[in-house]
Amino acid sequence: MAAPMLTVGEALARVLGEVRPLPTVERPLEKALGLRLAVDVWADADQPPFDKALMDGYAVRASDLAELPRRLLLGETIAAGGLPSRPLGPGEAAVIMTGAPLPPGADAVVMVEKTARDGDGVAIRPQPIKPGMNLMPRGGIYRGGARLMTGGVDLTPARLGLLAAVGATAIRVYDVPKVAIVPTGDELVDFHETPGPGQIRNSNAPMLAALTAGKGAEPWVSPILVDEPDALRAGLAEALKRDLVLAVGGVSAGQWDLVPETLRSLGVRQVFHKIRIRPGKPLWFGVGPDRDDDRPPALVFGLPGNPLSGLVNFLYFAAPALDAMQGRPATGPAFVPARAARRFNRNATLNVFQAARVVEPREASRPAAVEPLENRGSSDLAAIVDADGFVEVPSGDGAIEPGEIVGFLPLG
Amino acid sequence: MAAPMLTVGEALARVLGEVRPLPTVERPLEKALGLRLAVDVWADADQPPFDKALMDGYAVRASDLAELPRRLLLGETIAAGGLPSRPLGPGEAAVIMTGAPLPPGADAVVMVEKTARDGDGVAIRPQPIKPGMNLMPRGGIYRGGARLMTGGVDLTPARLGLLAAVGATAIRVYDVPKVAIVPTGDELVDFHETPGPGQIRNSNAPMLAALTAGKGAEPWVSPILVDEPDALRAGLAEALKRDLVLAVGGVSAGQWDLVPETLRSLGVRQVFHKIRIRPGKPLWFGVGPDRDDDRPPALVFGLPGNPLSGLVNFLYFAAPALDAMQGRPATGPAFVPARAARRFNRNATLNVFQAARVVEPREASRPAAVEPLENRGSSDLAAIVDADGFVEVPSGDGAIEPGEIVGFLPLG
Repeated sequence: MAAPMLTVGEALARVLGEVRPLPTVERPLEKALGLRLAVDVWADADQPPFDKALMDGYAVRASDLAELPRRLLLGETIAAGGLPSRPLGPGEAAVIMTGAPLPPGADAVVMVEKTARDGDGVAIRPQPIKPGMNLMPRGGIYRGGARLMTGGVDLTPARLGLLAAVGATAIRVYDVPKVAIVPTGDELVDFHETPGPGQIRNSNAPMLAALTAGKGAEPWVSPILVDEPDALRAGLAEALKRDLVLAVGGVSAGQWDLVPETLRSLGVRQVFHKIRIRPGKPLWFGVGPDRDDDRPPALVFGLPGNPLSGLVNFLYFAAPALDAMQGRPATGPAFVPARAARRFNRNATLNVFQAARVVEPREASRPAAVEPLENRGSSDLAAIVDADGFVEVPSGDGAIEPGEIVGFLPLG
Repeated sequence: MAAPMLTVGEALARVLGEVRPLPTVERPLEKALGLRLAVDVWADADQPPFDKALMDGYAVRASDLAELPRRLLLGETIAAGGLPSRPLGPGEAAVIMTGAPLPPGADAVVMVEKTARDGDGVAIRPQPIKPGMNLMPRGGIYRGGARLMTGGVDLTPARLGLLAAVGATAIRVYDVPKVAIVPTGDELVDFHETPGPGQIRNSNAPMLAALTAGKGAEPWVSPILVDEPDALRAGLAEALKRDLVLAVGGVSAGQWDLVPETLRSLGVRQVFHKIRIRPGKPLWFGVGPDRDDDRPPALVFGLPGNPLSGLVNFLYFAAPALDAMQGRPATGPAFVPARAARRFNRNATLNVFQAARVVEPREASRPAAVEPLENRGSSDLAAIVDADGFVEVPSGDGAIEPGEIVGFLPLG
C-alpha cells in the first residue's frame, strides 16, 4: 500500500529539511563571483589611507584664504601615487592631483578651474572656502578594523571590489555544489550521435547541466547508463561522490524502473517518491550515505525522463536545495506575482506548472500579464522554448480566471 | 568652449548608435548557455521518431478491447531502446515500456496497473479504451523540417535541450564580447600587493571584471598603466584589440588626465566627454579605429577612478552596449518600478543614481519599497555593498517624496 502522495509544499519542506550546508573553502577573489561569503570582513587600514584630494587643483590652508582674491606661492607638485616631501607653509599652495595625498598643514583643495597660474604663484579667485573642501580625510570612508561585510551575503561585483580594496586576495566562501547528472535508459544516445531505430538523443543532460551552471553549481555529466543493474550500480555509485545527484529516467513505477531500487542498494535513504505535481509527478528523492570526507551526504533526485518534468522538478526542488547548500535562507522557488491574461485550468489533485509567456509587461501598479502556452505533453520541449516561466496552478476545482493573480516562476 | 553636457538619455542613445553587432561564430552546445542564437533551427526528424509508449504496460489493438474484461495472448517484450521484431497480431498484447516504440498494428497502450498477468496471457480489466491512448504518435511533438527556433533568442537551458534533441552539437551564435579592463594611475597597486604610502589597491579591475563576466562577456584585465604617455599608449593599443575597452582613471579635466589624449592619438574618435549624471559625470566615450579582422571597432569607455562612478557608468552604458553587440534589442538598462520609502533628493542638473535597498518586498498590487543608502561620496564602495540597486533620480528641483514611483535598477 503506497503512502499518500505529498503535496509540492510538503515535498519541498522535506527536501530543504535534508539539506546540510557544504563546507567552506578559500577561493581566489577572481573566482568568487556569485558565491556566498562565509566570514565577516574587516578593514585592514583606514580608507582613504591619507587625506586625499578629490579634485585636481591646489592644496591650501583655508586660513590663508579668508580674503579673496589672493595670490599664493607655488610649492611642490604632488601627483597621485606620489608623496608630499614637506609640510605646506603659510601662504603656500601645492599643486595636487585627484587621488593624491595632501601635505601636512593643508586642509582644503581649490579646484584648478577656480584659479589662475601666475609665474611662481597662483591666484585664487573669489569663492567660498572652507576647511575640508574637496578632500576626503584619512579614514573618512571607513576606519581600519571596521566590519565591512557580514558573512552570509552573496559576492556581487561591488562586494568583490571592496574585498580587493582591503587586500582580501582569497576569500572564505561556501563551496560550490558539485552536481552529477546521470542519464539512464537503453533508448538514449549521446546528442552527438545519430539515433538508430527506436533511439532518441539525450537532451536532458545538456539541459540539466545548463540549469546547474546557471545556479552557479558545477555540473558533471555521467555517461549514459543502460537499464541494467550492474551498470546502474556502478554509475550511480560514482555519482554519489558529488553533493547532489540528478538521475534521469527510470523512476516511474514499471517493472524496468531500476533506479530507485539501485539507489537503495547503494545506501540511499528514500525520503519520498511521487508528488502531487504535473509535470514531474514521478519525482524520487533520497539522501545518500555518510561520506568519508567533510561533505554532507549527497541529495539524490530521481527525475522522470520527460524534459518538462525534469525542468520543473529542477526549478522547484533542486534549485532551492542548491541555494540552501551554500548557506542561503532555505526558501522555495522565487515566484513573482503575475496576472492571468487567459484562463488557466486546474487539476483536481495535482499542482500544475503551466508554461506561460508574458503578454503585457509589468507596470508600477500591476504585475505582468501571462498566458498559458499549449503543449503536447511533458516531452514537448519545443512548446516551451518560448516560455518566460511557469505559472503554478494550485490543485482544485474550476480554473483561474483572467485577471486573477498567480504565482509565476520566471525562467532563466 | 566645451559643448553642453549630454543628458544620460542622450548619452545612452549615442552609445547604442555606435554599436555594430559582433560576428557570429559556431560554439559547441555545451559552451552556449546564455549566448544569442544567430540562425533559425529546424527539426532534423519527426519527434518522437516512432509511435512511442507513454506508460509501462501493454501495446494492444483497441479494436480487440471493445468488450472488457478480456484476456490477450502475451507477445514479445519491447523495452525502451529496443525494437519490435514483428507486427502485433489480433488478440495479442506486447509488453511495452515507457519510451519504447509500438509494434505495427498496435494503436493503444494499457497501463500495467489496469491489467493482471495470467500465465502466457494478460487480463485487461474494464476501463475506457480508445485508439491513441497512452502513446505519442510519430511526429506528434514536431515534424522533421519544422522550424523550432528563430534566430535572435537567448540560449536558455530549455533551448539547449531542444538543440540537443535535434542533434545541433555546434550552434551559430553571436560571439562573446571581449572586454579589456585597463586600470591607470600612479597611485594604484595590484590588490594582491600591500600599498605603500600614498598608494591604494586597485579595486576597480576586479569589480569591472566581475560585472563583465556577469553580463556573459569575457574580461581581460590589463596590467596597471602609469600616468605616462608611452606606457598609456602601449597599454591602450593592446586594449583596443578587444571589442570594448573600460579604461579606468585619468578622464576628469586636470593636467595629468592623459587618457583621452592618448586614446585620440591612437585613432579613437571621441563621441562625448562628461554627462549629466552623478556619480560618473566624467565619463568619456569614443570609438576605436577600423580593425583588420571582421570585428567592429572597439567601443571605448573612459571611466572615472571612483568605484561608484565606474559601477554606475558600467550598468547604465556598457551593459546595454554589450547586449546590443550580441544582437539583442538596443534598449537601455532594465529599470523596474519601485516605490520611494523615503525622500530622494534631486540635483538641479544631474540625474543622480542613488544606491538604495529594498525595505518592503514587491506585492501583486504594488512594487517593492526602496530607501536611499547614505554614502560618503563616489569612492565609498563600503556604503553600497548592501545596496539592492540604484534609483535614478531625474534632475530637477525639489525631491521625490515617499510613495512616489521611481525607476529602480537592480544590482546583480
